[in-house]
Amino acid sequence: KNRARLLINCPDQPGIVAAISQFLAEHNANILESNQYSTNPKGGEFFIRLEFEMPQLKEKIATLEEDFKEIKEKFNMKATFKYVDQIKKVAVFVSKEPHCLLELLWEWQSGDLMADISLVVSNHETSREYVESLGIPYYYIPANKDIRNEVEEQQIKLLKEHDIDVIVLARYMQILTPNFVEVFKNKIINIHHSFLPAFIGAKPYERAYNRGVKLIGATSHYVTNDLDEGPIIEQDISRVDHRDNAEVMKKIGQSVERSVLARAVKWHLEDRIIVYGNKTIVF
Amino acid sequence: KNRARLLINCPDQPGIVAAISQFLAEHNANILESNQYSTNPKGGEFFIRLEFEMPQLKEKIATLEEDFKEIKEKFNMKATFKYVDQIKKVAVFVSKEPHCLLELLWEWQSGDLMADISLVVSNHETSREYVESLGIPYYYIPANKDIRNEVEEQQIKLLKEHDIDVIVLARYMQILTPNFVEVFKNKIINIHHSFLPAFIGAKPYERAYNRGVKLIGATSHYVTNDLDEGPIIEQDISRVDHRDNAEVMKKIGQSVERSVLARAVKWHLEDRIIVYGNKTIVF
Amino acid sequence: KNRARLLINCPDQPGIVAAISQFLAEHNANILESNQYSTNPKGGEFFIRLEFEMPQLKEKIATLEEDFKEIKEKFNMKATFKYVDQIKKVAVFVSKEPHCLLELLWEWQSGDLMADISLVVSNHETSREYVESLGIPYYYIPANKDIRNEVEEQQIKLLKEHDIDVIVLARYMQILTPNFVEVFKNKIINIHHSFLPAFIGAKPYERAYNRGVKLIGATSHYVTNDLDEGPIIEQDISRVDHRDNAEVMKKIGQSVERSVLARAVKWHLEDRIIVYGNKTIVF
Amino acid sequence: KNRARLLINCPDQPGIVAAISQFLAEHNANILESNQYSTNPKGGEFFIRLEFEMPQLKEKIATLEEDFKEIKEKFNMKATFKYVDQIKKVAVFVSKEPHCLLELLWEWQSGDLMADISLVVSNHETSREYVESLGIPYYYIPANKDIRNEVEEQQIKLLKEHDIDVIVLARYMQILTPNFVEVFKNKIINIHHSFLPAFIGAKPYERAYNRGVKLIGATSHYVTNDLDEGPIIEQDISRVDHRDNAEVMKKIGQSVERSVLARAVKWHLEDRIIVYGNKTIVF
Repeated sequence: KNRARLLINCPDQPGIVAAISQFLAEHNANILESNQYSTNPKGGEFFIRLEFEMPQLKEKIATLEEDFKEIKEKFNMKATFKYVDQIKKVAVFVSKEPHCLLELLWEWQSGDLMADISLVVSNHETSREYVESLGIPYYYIPANKDIRNEVEEQQIKLLKEHDIDVIVLARYMQILTPNFVEVFKNKIINIHHSFLPAFIGAKPYERAYNRGVKLIGATSHYVTNDLDEGPIIEQDISRVDHRDNAEVMKKIGQSVERSVLARAVKWHLEDRIIVYGNKTIVF
Repeated sequence: KNRARLLINCPDQPGIVAAISQFLAEHNANILESNQYSTNPKGGEFFIRLEFEMPQLKEKIATLEEDFKEIKEKFNMKATFKYVDQIKKVAVFVSKEPHCLLELLWEWQSGDLMADISLVVSNHETSREYVESLGIPYYYIPANKDIRNEVEEQQIKLLKEHDIDVIVLARYMQILTPNFVEVFKNKIINIHHSFLPAFIGAKPYERAYNRGVKLIGATSHYVTNDLDEGPIIEQDISRVDHRDNAEVMKKIGQSVERSVLARAVKWHLEDRIIVYGNKTIVF
Repeated sequence: KNRARLLINCPDQPGIVAAISQFLAEHNANILESNQYSTNPKGGEFFIRLEFEMPQLKEKIATLEEDFKEIKEKFNMKATFKYVDQIKKVAVFVSKEPHCLLELLWEWQSGDLMADISLVVSNHETSREYVESLGIPYYYIPANKDIRNEVEEQQIKLLKEHDIDVIVLARYMQILTPNFVEVFKNKIINIHHSFLPAFIGAKPYERAYNRGVKLIGATSHYVTNDLDEGPIIEQDISRVDHRDNAEVMKKIGQSVERSVLARAVKWHLEDRIIVYGNKTIVF
Repeated sequence: KNRARLLINCPDQPGIVAAISQFLAEHNANILESNQYSTNPKGGEFFIRLEFEMPQLKEKIATLEEDFKEIKEKFNMKATFKYVDQIKKVAVFVSKEPHCLLELLWEWQSGDLMADISLVVSNHETSREYVESLGIPYYYIPANKDIRNEVEEQQIKLLKEHDIDVIVLARYMQILTPNFVEVFKNKIINIHHSFLPAFIGAKPYERAYNRGVKLIGATSHYVTNDLDEGPIIEQDISRVDHRDNAEVMKKIGQSVERSVLARAVKWHLEDRIIVYGNKTIVF
């Protein structure tokens, strides 16, 4: 396909949109979709996402990016071109509970996730059979905090071999070290089984039950070194009542987790997300 | 304020965004927000809403609109400039049930509706006292289908005297004639007390109750000559169960009606809505 | 297990709860959950669902039901005992789109559907492989309106052989005849891909898109002879906007269909639903 | 009216429902609604709410409560009779922001809150005019932490003079002392402007904005001595996105606060809530 996306943020000032859209017009591109946002018209940060089509895009990529450098420097932009036919390679990490993994595989099978699911990594054997039946390699790497560094070394090696673009933690119940996170900055998407920042950390459903909440939620976010504190991509909730014990809440919550993570991953794959500070702009 | 909005639709083709944004840059405007959508990149309809700031806007309005004509013709655009300091004049029509009127007055009092509520028209005296206590003129015009034409003549005269930009039917239980609707095309916003197209017409809550639905809704739409068939602006729902009879559904529904109508009116006042065919694009 | 449920409806009058609960106490039953509702305390219909535990229930079933007849007649009750250890046998009917079938199989695999999924019937071969991989028999019965009677004869024979209690139409795109419906009255659960009564009939997403709605929904209901008019069990919606074409609406809608149907089936299996007239009471 | 409610909790054991319903039948009462819940059938806590009608209830109240003592003691019950014609007296506390107060007054005017709003107490004069226009006394009692005890003394005196049953903190921005809370245990309903337990304490919208959440919420709870930690009655949320700054979030949140508080107050007035430990059972 001749389709590309351009994601930009820079200090706001007059003339940015004109410069970009003139550039694209001169390069014979047709803008299909464009979304813009500014934290503050005076002295704020400007964000834009453009999706465009360009005849014979493939041959022109190098020129396009080279030519854009002038504008990029002039406006002091952080700018990334993404090309739709460069399908992203995804690794899914999972522990015992398979519901989030299954949701992703399902979306992928029905053609709704534009990605290669290149491999599944797990510290349990639980999902091997199903994953392999879809022709996806399954790597069982036992993990616990005592061997964290060795485990991550092995994982990083694997991820690099497969040239992975995105790591999805689909209920992977191990903490990642700062080293691992640094290697894949803004490329690791986690699902937390609570409505963050409520119930940060372990056993959120038990704690939600004990607190007597009337809604439970799930949060998908990029992973940073602060546990459960990374930029939030998507959240959603479901209603519970006094009859629902922690076990039932967990079941209800799994359904929320599935859809929240699937939406977050899809938006990432469609290059809809710009991370800025500890927040996301989702276009 | 030096703030304006530009709403455009036209057949899609390359170069539109470039032309508009270059035009605005040349006129020294800073784009604050821009949203774009195309029904189909090839041969579809293109929509854009831009909000921008321009120094000494007031003096430049005539030139601005004049200069834009070239682009407008070139791309065969339907284009409208809206100026934020030209506060819209609103007439609210209401019958007996005051909940939607109250919601609008309340939002208006707390500064959330950027509008002049110039008058309230009613076929009942019910809300006079409260409306007048806020310093808003209240016109009691009895109405029924036998005197529809005379009533509307009187209403149109009133609306023209007050130079009204928007008419909000806040549970006004009279049908408007094609003549009235023609005079204020895409300027009359209605709240229908059901989730359209379910329960078109009268007594939706009774019918919803009889059908045994598990959700009830409300729909805000522009008024056209087809009853309850105009372009939908916003919809929302609320959950009900077997314990809720038609009376209770009505109460629950009123709360949905209030918020749905308030959102629709706010978006209209912020020039966020483009009507295209029988649909709305809400940016 | 020694657990049972008692579902009753009868004309309301004083003393019903006392009679039932005294009866259960005399039979040494401990009431675990009870829900009651009356359409109108004076001359309305009374509904109750009780879940109770009784030591050595299995041996006592015959006596229990026999003894209850007196109360049943006195209050002119429609009453049914259901025993938790009599697992219901479910047949799932599906056409091409597998999403609802997959959701049910998934819930079933994770132990959340207390049922035997005894067989899957389809007019397409699409889902055979996956269904059979779970050890569930898959019957391919081609269908179209010209051979409807022969097809249904074959289906009914199959369902009787398997002693089926519930038929779930998980996006089965064939209309059932009155004869079929009569044989399995209040035992056939359908998922309709719209927020009924909006968009009754075929192609609801296309029609929702054309109407420009801002929410789409799904409805699960018992099947009667009036197309899409049977008693509604559950409904839910999802938000859409102008960017979502009919194809995208369909994708978003499938996610709603999955969860709505799964909830409806689960409630039916837990004997939570009483059908009364064209409505459901869901306890 | 001859209508009453009976709220009970006690250790679960067989025979409770039978005992209660037989008692009511013998006293010629017709049960209109009954809801029951048990934390655990074996050794858990049993909860029930019954609404019933009894001819000449008023004359029989003393006998009724006296006769019930036997059952109460036998099952070790916490039991309360509530009589629908004993309208509850409500005091509303408010600071500057009037939206929650207005919602309550509005529901009250349209007959949806079965209560006497006996007085409004505020540490600001903001809402005096509107409250007094409805014939409700308005007490301006300036407050700050240095004079907390004197202020509360004055408030308690006022509340006792008016024989107040329920205190609603409709965005009252002062902390109450343990002494005040003790006097009105489980009778003070607060609205917290966040989805607890996220953003406990001050400035929740600012903190929600800084955290980059995608949903904001509100929580209504009974007040205890642990700040924002009391039993939750109701919660709800609204979606926000990157365009919504803290100010906009606050506006959106106010709408959630209004409906959440109104629902919680209504349920309390209808005697639907049993507080148990730090949780609520809402029937």
